[in-house]
Amino acid sequence: MTDLLDRTIALIGPLDADAMRAAEARQLQLTKPPKALGRLETLSIQLAGIQGKEQPVIADKAIAVMAADHGVVAEGVSAFPAEVTPAMVLNMVAGGAGINVIGRHVGARVVVTDLGVNADLGAADIRHDKIRMGTANMAQGPAMTRDEAIRAVESGIRLVEEEMEKGLDILATGEVGIGNTTAASAVIAVLSGEAPARVTGRGTGITQEALIGKVTTIEKAIAVNQPDRLDPIDVLAKVGGLDIAGMTGVFLGGAAHRLPVVMDGFISAAAALAAVRLCHECVDYILPSHVSIEIGHQVVLDELGLVPLFDLQMRLGEGTGAALSMSIIEASARILSEMATFESAGVAGDPSEADAELKR
Amino acid sequence: MTDLLDRTIALIGPLDADAMRAAEARQLQLTKPPKALGRLETLSIQLAGIQGKEQPVIADKAIAVMAADHGVVAEGVSAFPAEVTPAMVLNMVAGGAGINVIGRHVGARVVVTDLGVNADLGAADIRHDKIRMGTANMAQGPAMTRDEAIRAVESGIRLVEEEMEKGLDILATGEVGIGNTTAASAVIAVLSGEAPARVTGRGTGITQEALIGKVTTIEKAIAVNQPDRLDPIDVLAKVGGLDIAGMTGVFLGGAAHRLPVVMDGFISAAAALAAVRLCHECVDYILPSHVSIEIGHQVVLDELGLVPLFDLQMRLGEGTGAALSMSIIEASARILSEMATFESAGVAGDPSEADAELKR
Repeated sequence: MTDLLDRTIALIGPLDADAMRAAEARQLQLTKPPKALGRLETLSIQLAGIQGKEQPVIADKAIAVMAADHGVVAEGVSAFPAEVTPAMVLNMVAGGAGINVIGRHVGARVVVTDLGVNADLGAADIRHDKIRMGTANMAQGPAMTRDEAIRAVESGIRLVEEEMEKGLDILATGEVGIGNTTAASAVIAVLSGEAPARVTGRGTGITQEALIGKVTTIEKAIAVNQPDRLDPIDVLAKVGGLDIAGMTGVFLGGAAHRLPVVMDGFISAAAALAAVRLCHECVDYILPSHVSIEIGHQVVLDELGLVPLFDLQMRLGEGTGAALSMSIIEASARILSEMATFESAGVAGDPSEADAELKR
Repeated sequence: MTDLLDRTIALIGPLDADAMRAAEARQLQLTKPPKALGRLETLSIQLAGIQGKEQPVIADKAIAVMAADHGVVAEGVSAFPAEVTPAMVLNMVAGGAGINVIGRHVGARVVVTDLGVNADLGAADIRHDKIRMGTANMAQGPAMTRDEAIRAVESGIRLVEEEMEKGLDILATGEVGIGNTTAASAVIAVLSGEAPARVTGRGTGITQEALIGKVTTIEKAIAVNQPDRLDPIDVLAKVGGLDIAGMTGVFLGGAAHRLPVVMDGFISAAAALAAVRLCHECVDYILPSHVSIEIGHQVVLDELGLVPLFDLQMRLGEGTGAALSMSIIEASARILSEMATFESAGVAGDPSEADAELKR
């Protein structure tokens, strides 16, 4: 481990219990039956604990999209050719990708980092932090070196710190990179101990036959590289990806700086699992968003004890599910700050009695 | 039936199949794997069919909150006293209720109608259309006359027409009225044929003992009034409420004017069921939002064949769940209009091949 990664992990502490108690007490004073807003209430209390404020603020939002290519595409694991990765990055720069639309809709800026796209993107208006021209083919050897994996994680940490200078209340993770569901499945299989077939799906839309080949490729990559499941950096380096490692850094950096980080779909889940294995307390700073139709996503949600906010059968990645859920998360914070209390509104009611009943 | 109600029902027609085909074709050209945005795609196609446009627009939004009191509160069916209804209406006028916060958050105006609050709200800045000072106690006789029920439905229809003059792309239903879960359970029990115990929950938070009394009250109201389940207006009049009847009108008026109407929680579901029983084609214009923890809500969703967008254990009413989902619905429309196509972005890919596979 290096300095920045070590220091970041050391900074991650528990949620602020005082702020959570204050937020919970305030929820009971708002003009509604106790707990009538369900998960909006528990979300607001968690946000209070993360930010250390009775009334958390969700205004400045950033979506960290990590872009990288995957050498394993040579094994025929994807329905789309690798050339789509740089094309999609340029589409994001032009504002035409799904994440741009949803980012604009929820008022979040999209920050695209080139961690390892296998093309020269020198002129593009993105965050340039290319570590290598895509990973190596993990079916034949390690995807990258340990040092490269750490550099990718630290790029995610530095992204958080850079964005904080512009004002930042919440982050979402996202990615673009043809082949990255294969790497995510491999990382999740190793870290969860599940068989690759249990955590591998059709990605961008491969055939049943190609899915069988994808599972075989992942099994081969794990057999060839023998990643140490107790060493998440080793797993990220050998069978992961630069995008996944970068998002792992975003989760860790967010937690260290007391910022909620919204987890997107399947690829983000692999990164979240790695982050939590590096530092268990990080999990309290991770907010789930949707559940992807990629079968391995639910495995990670279960591992982390997270319940998604919605299931809209999305599987695009890019951060689209996380960005969409930012609207719900922001609403939960605004409820806590902006709703009148029984006292301020002069509304009668006996919330304490109903509350006692609801607690069963 | 009267003129306005009859004319409105006669106006309701099928969705625009041409617009839906065009929207579906456009979805396949957007820079993403086919169907990768799941329900956001199907939602956008439904919106196209409703509005009759390849690229539907969700900009001007209104939440129709129907306020009314319920005489059945005399039977002890609610955890809160009836005086809370006018207090909550005034709280909404002041902008302090949950629906005000979420309405502001999603950019929707909140239109509160007094259809039957048992207090003089003459000075309040709301839509005044009081039909009577709350319903009568349905455990002892009809909640209101047939004529009053029709007037309440027509108030909802007129609301849609009034709001269209201000610019309107989408509506949500909402309500406020102590005792209204009891009326909603009664309406749903009669229209669905389910036993009252199967569709009755704790409302604002009553005890288990009070819940048993609530079910008994509903059974008594049905026995005393003998509503005709094949005549929805009769059901609304005898065991319904002015708020429920008003929302029934909003669903019908929205469908007649080719506007999507987002259904909120349990009370809204009772109104939606009545609207669909009055005109089956209305169902295509109703968008589900959340599923409430009130047990009868799922019964209606099943009756109408609707799948909620999310389950956040909300049970506040007021339109809060519907308003929250407007953000997701608007996102679906923006995706269709704002995402780049493969051609415009110069992204390679073979969506048709992947699509054939995904269609299984």
